[in-house]
Order: sequence, then structure tokens, then C-alpha cells
Amino acid sequence: MDIRRIQPRNWNSRAVVYGNTAYFSGIVADDKSGTMAEQTANILNKIDALLADVGSNKSRVLSAVVYLADMDRKDEMNESWIAWMDPDNPPARAAVGSELTPGTLVEIMITAAV
Amino acid sequence: MDIRRIQPRNWNSRAVVYGNTAYFSGIVADDKSGTMAEQTANILNKIDALLADVGSNKSRVLSAVVYLADMDRKDEMNESWIAWMDPDNPPARAAVGSELTPGTLVEIMITAAV
Amino acid sequence: MDIRRIQPRNWNSRAVVYGNTAYFSGIVADDKSGTMAEQTANILNKIDALLADVGSNKSRVLSAVVYLADMDRKDEMNESWIAWMDPDNPPARAAVGSELTPGTLVEIMITAAV
Repeated sequence: MDIRRIQPRNWNSRAVVYGNTAYFSGIVADDKSGTMAEQTANILNKIDALLADVGSNKSRVLSAVVYLADMDRKDEMNESWIAWMDPDNPPARAAVGSELTPGTLVEIMITAAV
Repeated sequence: MDIRRIQPRNWNSRAVVYGNTAYFSGIVADDKSGTMAEQTANILNKIDALLADVGSNKSRVLSAVVYLADMDRKDEMNESWIAWMDPDNPPARAAVGSELTPGTLVEIMITAAV
Repeated sequence: MDIRRIQPRNWNSRAVVYGNTAYFSGIVADDKSGTMAEQTANILNKIDALLADVGSNKSRVLSAVVYLADMDRKDEMNESWIAWMDPDNPPARAAVGSELTPGTLVEIMITAAV
């Protein structure tokens, strides 16, 4: 099966497509001054664009790991997540607390069907 | 390939089957008063039921990430894990420390063959 | 599809091959006295050997999660990562902070095409 690398950089590719499955890098918000809700919404916008790049969309997300710098604000993340998610097609998901790079409140890594 | 979503809720599905692979959500124990060993055993019971729901079983688990709220009790988790695991078919696994929701001592996210 | 388990132990397999995809355990350095850069380089050597065991190589890594015990030393990890990585084939990757077992500064869990 072919491997296709999307937006390769010198340490990762934003996404890697292998056969019918796309593996994404952990995506973070561009604006680190945003709240948890804002950073999550920004990340999900970026994920929408990447999903389009691999020929997929949010109804075909299989799995997600959400890394949160502050678990007390998990509900805030969740509001943006639920606002974004296709209600007919919820992915498998785990949301766990992790130290992230300074200013980053949340990072999301998904796997999707193409 | 078809995507099948198991126990969809408004923020995730407990499992998502894509072709011959099933992606599971992070599973936590129902009873937060349990010890690390008890919570792990409870999670693995729940995973057994979910594996049956997707037409799989514990001999076909491919990979697992175990998130632990307290790494000092990793051995306790491991005892329940080894008691449960099919000794002829150990999955790939990582076990790392992560902040989890209050009372949750351990959360397990697996991928399985169907 | 066949499942093949590489270096099975009583709690995990170092890698599990399912069809054309290989799932690896979290790999840690053998020498816990090494620096972040040294432990990362040691892990990547071990991953090279495991990739060979499954009939793959570093140009076919799809995805990686890097768990760091100290996010202040992420750049050090990254130097070893970039020195190792096939520049034409960067994997998808997330690098997040996690508590690890004592002495372990970094743990890497990959998925690869075989």
C-alpha cells in the first residue's frame, strides 16, 4: 500500500495516509493567548483543513486523543468538541492530562478513514 | 470500507470499527472508590464486553495505552492486566502517567482486530 | 488477517503485526543514566531493530507518540529524533509530557507500515 505524507516538515508530517487510513500529528492552536475553548475550536478548524487535504472529513474520524494541560478545563474543551463533532459519527476518544509546550492548553491527535 | 460506531454518545463512541480494525475510547472504571487493581479489573471487564460487541475478544487486542494517575501503583495495575491478558497473545502496550478526571486512577485505550 | 506477535513477554509484545500495519509498544532506553538526547538515540536504535524484525524500516513509520518526563528538554529529544528520522519520510507525531518510570526520560510508541 502507498504511503502519502501531507505537509512534511523536518521533524514530522502533519498527516500520513496509508491505504485507507490517515494518521495525524498532534495539532495545537496557532494563538496561544486563546482560552481552552478557543484553542480547541482553532485546532478543530485546522483538523478540518487537514481532513480535506487527505480526502476525508469530520464524519470519518475514527479515533482521537485529546491531551489537556489543565484537566479542570476539560468541560470547556468538550463544549468546542461537541459543537464541532458530527453528532451522527462520534469518534472513539480519550482525554487525558499532559504537560504541553508553554501556552498550549490542548493538543489533539486523530486517526481518520479516507 | 464501512465505519461502524458502537455505543455512540454525544461526545464519543465507545468503539469504532473500520474494516477489520476496531478503535476504542479510553475506558475508565465505574466505581471510583476502587483501588488501582480493582479499577483496572473493572475496566478490563468492560473492555471484554466491548470486544464482544465488535466481534472480537482479548486474544485479538493489537495495542493498548494505559494512562495511570499514579505511577507508583503501576505494579498493581500490571497484576490485574496480567491476570486478564491472554498469555499467548500479548498486545503492544505503553503505560504512562497522566492526570485523569477526579477519582479515576487508570484509563485504558485499546485497538483490536475484528 | 493474520496477527503476528514479536518478542512476546508476560505483559506485552514489543510489536504486533496485523495485516500490513505494525503496532509497537512504548520503547524506553536501556541505560537510565543517559541524557535525554542519549536515551532518545538508544530508543531509536532499538526501534530500528524492531522495525527490521517486522520487515519494515524507518522510512515506513506512520505515526509516533513521544512521551517526555521533562518538557524543558524536548529540544534535546528532537535533535536525536531529527538525526535519526528519514528526512524524506517524516511520520505524524505528537510529543507530550507524561510521568514515566523512575530514570526514564522519554518513551516512544510508533505505528509502521510493513
